[in-house]
Amino acid sequence: MRDDWATFGADLHLDLRGTRLRAGLMDALREAVRSGRLAPGTRLPSSRQLAADLGVARNTVADAYAELVAEGWLTARQGSGTRVARRADPRPVAGPAGAEREGAGAERAGADGSAAPPRTPPAGSPPVGPTPGGPTPGGSAWRVSRRRTGPPAYDLRSGTPDLASFPRAAWLKAYRRALTAAPNEAFGYGDPHGREELRTVLAEYLARARGVHARPERIVVCAGFAHGLMLIGRVLRGRGARAVGVESYGLGPHAALLRDAGLTTPPLPFDERGTRVEELPSLAPDAVLLTAAHQFPLGGALPPDRRTAVVDWARATGGYVLEDDYDGEFRYDRQPVGALQGLDPERVVYLGTASKSLAPGLRLAWMVLPESLVDEVVAAKGAVVDWMCGTPDQLAFADFLATGAHDRHVRAMRLRYRHRRDQLVAALAERAPGIRVGGIAAGLHAVLSLPPGTEAAALRSAAWHGLAVQGLGRFRHPQAERSLEGLVVGYGTPPDSAWQGALQALCRVLEGVDEDRDPQDT
Amino acid sequence: MRDDWATFGADLHLDLRGTRLRAGLMDALREAVRSGRLAPGTRLPSSRQLAADLGVARNTVADAYAELVAEGWLTARQGSGTRVARRADPRPVAGPAGAEREGAGAERAGADGSAAPPRTPPAGSPPVGPTPGGPTPGGSAWRVSRRRTGPPAYDLRSGTPDLASFPRAAWLKAYRRALTAAPNEAFGYGDPHGREELRTVLAEYLARARGVHARPERIVVCAGFAHGLMLIGRVLRGRGARAVGVESYGLGPHAALLRDAGLTTPPLPFDERGTRVEELPSLAPDAVLLTAAHQFPLGGALPPDRRTAVVDWARATGGYVLEDDYDGEFRYDRQPVGALQGLDPERVVYLGTASKSLAPGLRLAWMVLPESLVDEVVAAKGAVVDWMCGTPDQLAFADFLATGAHDRHVRAMRLRYRHRRDQLVAALAERAPGIRVGGIAAGLHAVLSLPPGTEAAALRSAAWHGLAVQGLGRFRHPQAERSLEGLVVGYGTPPDSAWQGALQALCRVLEGVDEDRDPQDT
Repeated sequence: MRDDWATFGADLHLDLRGTRLRAGLMDALREAVRSGRLAPGTRLPSSRQLAADLGVARNTVADAYAELVAEGWLTARQGSGTRVARRADPRPVAGPAGAEREGAGAERAGADGSAAPPRTPPAGSPPVGPTPGGPTPGGSAWRVSRRRTGPPAYDLRSGTPDLASFPRAAWLKAYRRALTAAPNEAFGYGDPHGREELRTVLAEYLARARGVHARPERIVVCAGFAHGLMLIGRVLRGRGARAVGVESYGLGPHAALLRDAGLTTPPLPFDERGTRVEELPSLAPDAVLLTAAHQFPLGGALPPDRRTAVVDWARATGGYVLEDDYDGEFRYDRQPVGALQGLDPERVVYLGTASKSLAPGLRLAWMVLPESLVDEVVAAKGAVVDWMCGTPDQLAFADFLATGAHDRHVRAMRLRYRHRRDQLVAALAERAPGIRVGGIAAGLHAVLSLPPGTEAAALRSAAWHGLAVQGLGRFRHPQAERSLEGLVVGYGTPPDSAWQGALQALCRVLEGVDEDRDPQDT
Repeated sequence: MRDDWATFGADLHLDLRGTRLRAGLMDALREAVRSGRLAPGTRLPSSRQLAADLGVARNTVADAYAELVAEGWLTARQGSGTRVARRADPRPVAGPAGAEREGAGAERAGADGSAAPPRTPPAGSPPVGPTPGGPTPGGSAWRVSRRRTGPPAYDLRSGTPDLASFPRAAWLKAYRRALTAAPNEAFGYGDPHGREELRTVLAEYLARARGVHARPERIVVCAGFAHGLMLIGRVLRGRGARAVGVESYGLGPHAALLRDAGLTTPPLPFDERGTRVEELPSLAPDAVLLTAAHQFPLGGALPPDRRTAVVDWARATGGYVLEDDYDGEFRYDRQPVGALQGLDPERVVYLGTASKSLAPGLRLAWMVLPESLVDEVVAAKGAVVDWMCGTPDQLAFADFLATGAHDRHVRAMRLRYRHRRDQLVAALAERAPGIRVGGIAAGLHAVLSLPPGTEAAALRSAAWHGLAVQGLGRFRHPQAERSLEGLVVGYGTPPDSAWQGALQALCRVLEGVDEDRDPQDT
């Protein structure tokens, strides 16, 4: 998740929480002019630039600028951009505005070092920003500045695609077309299988893009992967299953959803080639949850012999493989390996999602089920009506797939993520050559292996550098037999405008680790 | 739910399931011309009229007409409408088209009586259509005809608003504005409380429209009422609750959701004034689920003394009242009575929904919670991320509320539903004066009390008349102490174009009951 705040202009803090984005921006700009922190004549960043920096719609910034021009605080002239008006009164005013300023001033005091920061910076670590370099207080060089306390300036946490790249215009077009063409019944209670329009195009798409044996009647649409996992967990428990084996490194909340359904979630042993599925017969779970195409978080692909072995195990024992194919669209070094489900559609439950290829906020995902499970999953979802999945988004996504807009978006994002991954690998080779980038060239994240005993220090250093990033430790199953150290780098997460800054911050952190220097920490 | 099929033109059956609406319509029209059932020169209904009859978007019909004009099957001339082309070849053709025709021919044989219909019509009951009168095969008088088998022609089942009145244009406008203004983080994993933008405007709306004590931090957005009920059921069970009392007449699936959470759902006794809440101390449930403002399905409002008494019970025992305020926006004879929640926000869980005021297909609902339950409900919903509720629809609904579009829509629908209810009361007073319309003038449904022993016959007669309607029996709790007979008439369900036909069909059914004539049934 991206934190909804930002700082800009050396010392100008904007709390952009909630609905008052434009008003908050206007207040902050008025206050900066009033206090003299923005000198008369100072040129402001373009609305496009500032919107990108703040992660808000460009209109929000443009509207704020226009109103402040109308109020006389700013001037706008063709060719000269938007500037602080020469006549704007820089003197402080009393009352509520003063109280606001007090907050901003306190903030500024922290940022320019006149108040003690809560932590001492590690040696040789200047403050980090999208444009590296020291602060230029009150000047006209604009940059996003970092606060030493509060939310991080850069976000490389895994699990979220670049939200700034959400294809708003294309999605709106699909939504408009879908809503216009929808039959009236589409606005009523739906069939818990999900809309047939969507299941029809999904079947075609999954066969083409992921090698899934999909027929519309085997697909159940769900409100995200977690919803699908809840449903399948409940169905398996209802059939008498007791244990679903999960990967030793994975997402704890997913295992928790299975436990909520009354199942145990023993960890599956692993080695450098991935999950040791050959041990399934002795572990004897009722099902296993696997990220076969791109292990999350370690980043490997399950090798062919183990793909075959896990399906053979399921066939021999009546077990099920729950295949979490969360980012199968993104492979950079070769054609993606098809889904495991293709090996045996009657023993593999395929779970896919639009959360990585498009956006988690849409809550769109799907299961392709063995025939024997369809009715039970549909019954668990709501029997005769769909309690969970809204229709317009399903129809919009069907249109988005059918018209090729999804393919275009995925292609564009594949290039972007691949480029970022290449830059990550290159930057580390130069700046921290001792750090290995693990896993296959795929997806939205990479694992950087760290020497034993350094993960905690690296995370502290990252926090100091204003960088949000996760350690491998948080993904470890409490009963896993082995323990690894490393950083999980979600290079897909930041917007383009913040990517270079985030990468630089990461390099600084890793330089420290690589040189075996412990960052100073109070 | 509306069934996605329709017949038109005396004997032309269109299977409009799935994505091929336009193609299906074109096939059916080509076939009707080919077979001679649509004679050259026949004037077709306007695209607007046919779209309304079929419950599809007008563009779908207009596009089909335009393509058939381009193909030479139809002609279109200003002032003369769309007609079957004079040169269109009426002779059957061989091959796949012949196979298609075979199906349509079989259908026709049944409809015009040349094959035995599965049931014998009751005496004096001609086929029913929006334009009453006998069939005019092949003529130019267009009407939606009823099939004697298959889905019903008219739908007066309760629970769904008039889906043809969904404000597509206004909703699209809100969606577009919301998507354009949304900050990037809106596309990411959300806060399980729901979007703050929506909770802020909902708090204002619920206070104004329903007298709810609502603060944004007490609101949790959910994917429909059922989702909210699942969450609160789970939280109450987690706190040790065992029994949630439910109304003796109500929705079985809702009670089932509570039982899924591990609770029992004993029926609450009732009399002609509603649920006898004074018996709660001896029944001693941990909570009760009530439709206080408009009992579903019986239609009464809980009287003031019982409203007070149920809250007093909750206070005295530490119990909770779960208030299902499903259609509180629609009251026709007076200002709506405020929500029960206003009496004690710490003992009443308020559950509201957009499913009746707008559309069930959006899956938008909300809970206003006692402070003591907020954190547990949020944890049950997903703890740190919102697994279920999509962001764009939440933001669109926030805009829809904030701009007054929701108020405008509710006002328009209130007039429409009120008018229908008035027509229902007037038609019954004339045609079946022995049948009483029960409950308050509110909501989207009315209960028609029937003499003992006649409900089953009335339902058979309704089925014969092509009318889908529900008997009270299906809403009775299996352990309810009393049993009532009647029809639950969802007058809000049909589109305007089908309302008069549905009302006429209902009157015919009730004339039979009123005269104590059992419809003949094989």
